[in-house]
Amino acid sequence: MLRCLTAGESHGRAIVAILEGMPAGLKIDLLKVNQELKRRQAGFGRGKRMQLENDRAEIFSGLKNNLTLGSPLTLLIKNNDFSIEKLYKVFSPRPGHADLAGLLKYGFTDIREVLERASARSTVASVGIGALCKIFLNEFNVRISSRILSVGGENTPGSMRDKISEAIRLKDTVGGIFEVRAKGLPVGLGSYVQADKRLDGRLAQAIISIPGIKSFEVGLGSGYAISFGSEVHDEIYHAKGKGYLRKTNNAGGIEGGISNGEELVLRACMKPISTLMKPLDSVNIKTNKSSKAAVERSDTCVVEAAGVVAESACAFVLADAILEKFGSDSLREIKANYKSYIKRIS
Amino acid sequence: MLRCLTAGESHGRAIVAILEGMPAGLKIDLLKVNQELKRRQAGFGRGKRMQLENDRAEIFSGLKNNLTLGSPLTLLIKNNDFSIEKLYKVFSPRPGHADLAGLLKYGFTDIREVLERASARSTVASVGIGALCKIFLNEFNVRISSRILSVGGENTPGSMRDKISEAIRLKDTVGGIFEVRAKGLPVGLGSYVQADKRLDGRLAQAIISIPGIKSFEVGLGSGYAISFGSEVHDEIYHAKGKGYLRKTNNAGGIEGGISNGEELVLRACMKPISTLMKPLDSVNIKTNKSSKAAVERSDTCVVEAAGVVAESACAFVLADAILEKFGSDSLREIKANYKSYIKRIS
Amino acid sequence: MLRCLTAGESHGRAIVAILEGMPAGLKIDLLKVNQELKRRQAGFGRGKRMQLENDRAEIFSGLKNNLTLGSPLTLLIKNNDFSIEKLYKVFSPRPGHADLAGLLKYGFTDIREVLERASARSTVASVGIGALCKIFLNEFNVRISSRILSVGGENTPGSMRDKISEAIRLKDTVGGIFEVRAKGLPVGLGSYVQADKRLDGRLAQAIISIPGIKSFEVGLGSGYAISFGSEVHDEIYHAKGKGYLRKTNNAGGIEGGISNGEELVLRACMKPISTLMKPLDSVNIKTNKSSKAAVERSDTCVVEAAGVVAESACAFVLADAILEKFGSDSLREIKANYKSYIKRIS
Amino acid sequence: MLRCLTAGESHGRAIVAILEGMPAGLKIDLLKVNQELKRRQAGFGRGKRMQLENDRAEIFSGLKNNLTLGSPLTLLIKNNDFSIEKLYKVFSPRPGHADLAGLLKYGFTDIREVLERASARSTVASVGIGALCKIFLNEFNVRISSRILSVGGENTPGSMRDKISEAIRLKDTVGGIFEVRAKGLPVGLGSYVQADKRLDGRLAQAIISIPGIKSFEVGLGSGYAISFGSEVHDEIYHAKGKGYLRKTNNAGGIEGGISNGEELVLRACMKPISTLMKPLDSVNIKTNKSSKAAVERSDTCVVEAAGVVAESACAFVLADAILEKFGSDSLREIKANYKSYIKRIS
Repeated sequence: MLRCLTAGESHGRAIVAILEGMPAGLKIDLLKVNQELKRRQAGFGRGKRMQLENDRAEIFSGLKNNLTLGSPLTLLIKNNDFSIEKLYKVFSPRPGHADLAGLLKYGFTDIREVLERASARSTVASVGIGALCKIFLNEFNVRISSRILSVGGENTPGSMRDKISEAIRLKDTVGGIFEVRAKGLPVGLGSYVQADKRLDGRLAQAIISIPGIKSFEVGLGSGYAISFGSEVHDEIYHAKGKGYLRKTNNAGGIEGGISNGEELVLRACMKPISTLMKPLDSVNIKTNKSSKAAVERSDTCVVEAAGVVAESACAFVLADAILEKFGSDSLREIKANYKSYIKRIS
Repeated sequence: MLRCLTAGESHGRAIVAILEGMPAGLKIDLLKVNQELKRRQAGFGRGKRMQLENDRAEIFSGLKNNLTLGSPLTLLIKNNDFSIEKLYKVFSPRPGHADLAGLLKYGFTDIREVLERASARSTVASVGIGALCKIFLNEFNVRISSRILSVGGENTPGSMRDKISEAIRLKDTVGGIFEVRAKGLPVGLGSYVQADKRLDGRLAQAIISIPGIKSFEVGLGSGYAISFGSEVHDEIYHAKGKGYLRKTNNAGGIEGGISNGEELVLRACMKPISTLMKPLDSVNIKTNKSSKAAVERSDTCVVEAAGVVAESACAFVLADAILEKFGSDSLREIKANYKSYIKRIS
Repeated sequence: MLRCLTAGESHGRAIVAILEGMPAGLKIDLLKVNQELKRRQAGFGRGKRMQLENDRAEIFSGLKNNLTLGSPLTLLIKNNDFSIEKLYKVFSPRPGHADLAGLLKYGFTDIREVLERASARSTVASVGIGALCKIFLNEFNVRISSRILSVGGENTPGSMRDKISEAIRLKDTVGGIFEVRAKGLPVGLGSYVQADKRLDGRLAQAIISIPGIKSFEVGLGSGYAISFGSEVHDEIYHAKGKGYLRKTNNAGGIEGGISNGEELVLRACMKPISTLMKPLDSVNIKTNKSSKAAVERSDTCVVEAAGVVAESACAFVLADAILEKFGSDSLREIKANYKSYIKRIS
Repeated sequence: MLRCLTAGESHGRAIVAILEGMPAGLKIDLLKVNQELKRRQAGFGRGKRMQLENDRAEIFSGLKNNLTLGSPLTLLIKNNDFSIEKLYKVFSPRPGHADLAGLLKYGFTDIREVLERASARSTVASVGIGALCKIFLNEFNVRISSRILSVGGENTPGSMRDKISEAIRLKDTVGGIFEVRAKGLPVGLGSYVQADKRLDGRLAQAIISIPGIKSFEVGLGSGYAISFGSEVHDEIYHAKGKGYLRKTNNAGGIEGGISNGEELVLRACMKPISTLMKPLDSVNIKTNKSSKAAVERSDTCVVEAAGVVAESACAFVLADAILEKFGSDSLREIKANYKSYIKRIS
């Protein structure tokens, strides 16, 4: 079983993650981890911090000569802007953000104590962890990718870019829809035997838990609601040398909570960033008088980055499901077990 | 922390669930549990089994004089149709169902070995557990409800009913969209401090893990994708005697992974049932030759029931989050802790 | 990962357990489960209840034609003496028992609300679960046994029996030391990579969690405290056809938190039963005046039974560790993975 | 719920730990953390590394102005001797160590890949985490301490020191028995309702999981085996102003898996260190020929340090149990809940 804990505040010393359960004997190329961190910072509509931070992960444990030892891997990404104790206090919660609920929950008197952790900066850790999981998945020829489907209701590259430019001009923000796909998954990950073992549920939790994500769907998703069963279920065929196959993939690669061997297709909606340069109505929590919401340095649109974070969340779930099915100690052993299974079901 | 395990096959002796972590001193009215089981069996478009089974829960542990003892509660719902070992074998997997993936995963040679557990019958256990959680939530004035928003693309009572009748006539099936709402939640459940503590992610897992659910959204959900931030974030106000308040609830009651005190609003899509009376193309797994999919006794439309199951899944997550925040031993103690908190944040 | 939840009160309807994570394709012989339940009831020094209860498990889920389906197994053992709601209230806590601490923790006013769950009767569930795990372990030639080492300081069969007879005569109780052994474990279960993965720690938790157990040791145990390292560490040799071997087994089969291929040897102390027929000083919790402790029907000595329960606790941990290392879906697949590993390390 | 993951190799860059679940508003004095790290390095019989390493923790997350934010705390302790990739390979496993079992389990060809993580150096992380937990426990007036009871069978300060000197002279190692005590625990931590909730079992796992620990006992421990129940159970009394009280504490503060309000008393045996300067018989794993075991820089006796590590393991379990019972968000809230409970049960 793969476990991870992430830590770190937006303007703290560093973002840190420990990944426990990665098997021994996996070659880790730090460049690939850093490429993923770079991908997370990209996309049109990003703010100045993305120029300020040039995230680079350091690995503090779990490796010798770039090979995993079976022991926990620690990733540490320094914050260039380490200033948490010098920053001004924040008193006007941003609508859409954890600010107000976090303040009340924890009994704070300064919203900074919420926003430093409830920050999309924390997704650096997820992407680092996800990068390690992708390297593992790569050994099983599982490839994960993402793409933007729409931004602010627009769905062509040009119109999406225009929409983001408009949002920048208006000091507003804009969200959108992205898709994550995973090719090469074996049939049989996840299970229907207990609710919390279902692969779709685990993916849903991982992706909805990314800051700003408000919807999740698998395959045809809510599109299933408008059709008859006969129109949407993926009929089953068999061909010599290819085994069982489908001509459609409305299920998005999961049936009954289990991967069915087809491509995994997930979609999610990233809401517009909650920090607006043209702030919304709020209340000063000290006086309870009307006030404009706090303005923090922020981005205008992060749908592309959200896709990268979602790939990572997805990679963690899939790597975990592979370890669960095929064992957990060394890459060689797990690959051998995997191959025996693939051979058996072919 | 609340834990549960459910068990039982569709035509086994019984459906069983153990709920661990319910505090001492809660009065359990078995009638309420059975009412929920009844609600799960209702709705236009249900098949004959729903008439056959008149589910009644028995409580085998955890109670004395209808008061919880703090020890695990066991629910047992007998299957009237206990025949698992006499039923015919199944060789043609149903598209959309766990049949094929489950067979390959577990190395079975008879699809019955999959479908007996990968059956919506298992949701009886979830509803029973959910009913217990609702009784607990009721002590905190949290009320959960659900309603159908659309069936097969239709969204008025009459047109939905017509669509289901059409599906019955066509020996087809049809899905739809339902909504779950929870009123009375305190601000501060769930957290942003670690991904797996976010309330939205936990709700997503719980609801996507219900058989047949293919999408999940919170509040405005994918509707966030078409607007500017300034149009959709719920501005914050304050009024004497009422505290912080909002005029809109696009967030659906969750900001930053925490309940924000507004009504919880979730939506999900239930796909058309995978068992069609007019079966789809499939393959006989013994011969690998084309075949029509297996036909099991089934329903035509279960969107209303799926809503009831989703209420239950939601109730479990919310009860767990309350215990996490306010302690875990006796109802009286938890309520006292809850009241102190509410008083402090007011 | 193997999970279980147990439930049931001493005079409730039944003792119930759900075991989640057992792979598909394992043949379950209910006779073997019942034999284990019988073994738990045996031993000189048992009270009348053991004659009253003739425990027989029923399996309510997870099986078809005696083969596991990969789905959760439910064991249900009826209580012949189902009377929880008719029994008298208890007001004088027994020293050594959960009575007083449980009452205060949960805010009860009647000690019966504690003692019904905090009863050794709950170990019926553990033994049932353990029996299922033993059947699984048997497939890997792992055999678990236990024996009494001493009772009341006596360590020959005759003197132990005399000591128990003396305790009966004195209306007193007596404890002792037992040993659990597991033969046939492969090298490599558990791990040093994270504290909670260590096999010895997991076994310690499982065994110390049995009611009445106050000490736990592995191999030489506290005997390690009186020797130099050179006298007690098990030197390593190698012989053709046999592989690595030891001439001693002070480590008791675990080094560095991992099984090392030698016999697992554990020892534990079961304290004298807390219910004395000649009751100890206590206090009436309603009046806070001195009183003699409550007298419940009970046993005089249960060291032998405690050994059986400890075997079961041990079986659960070992089965879990095997699934963790070798995968989790079907017995055939796990056995194939196991054999490949054994071959590789030979 | 408190969670932690630790990471780091003996000669890696650093030892790292993330502690998740500590409430907001707790003042952390880093000096106290470093004092605990210092205590771990002390004791007669320690080797040269203890002089080389002067462990100092840095906190990378979870704090602002020394107050916890409710977010995960990261401790990082740099290894002065960061050389993992330059160190020689090791081929002769040390009897008593994870060396051989770890090598086979993970399929390594160099024992260094085992010993770098399976090293007592990892206990630095545990002590750091434990120090944070002690600061939390201190707010509830819970104080944890430890002391050596015996070394190599000797139990006076002078004879213990002589025994260690003898071991140094003989190039041997020596173990011993230590005791951990916790004063000030409230009645009601842990529970009998499910095996894995018992406080004694959780403490046993935590302490047996410390490298080198081979036995664990609570209170009178194995001493219970030689007496009648009437001689050892702690009779219950009541006195005005003091509430329920005992004249003896054989139970060691736990009855029925729950803290009973008396002092917690635990004992454990630390075996002699497995690395001997006068190495034992072993086998070269490349040639399978006889060889002397590897010699690594090491200590002669670490019983005192093991006591400090066990205090830490204990602190983690107790802090977790307090959060479980009294809630989890802010120190102020938890303390208020705690006080209400104490008042109620008085």
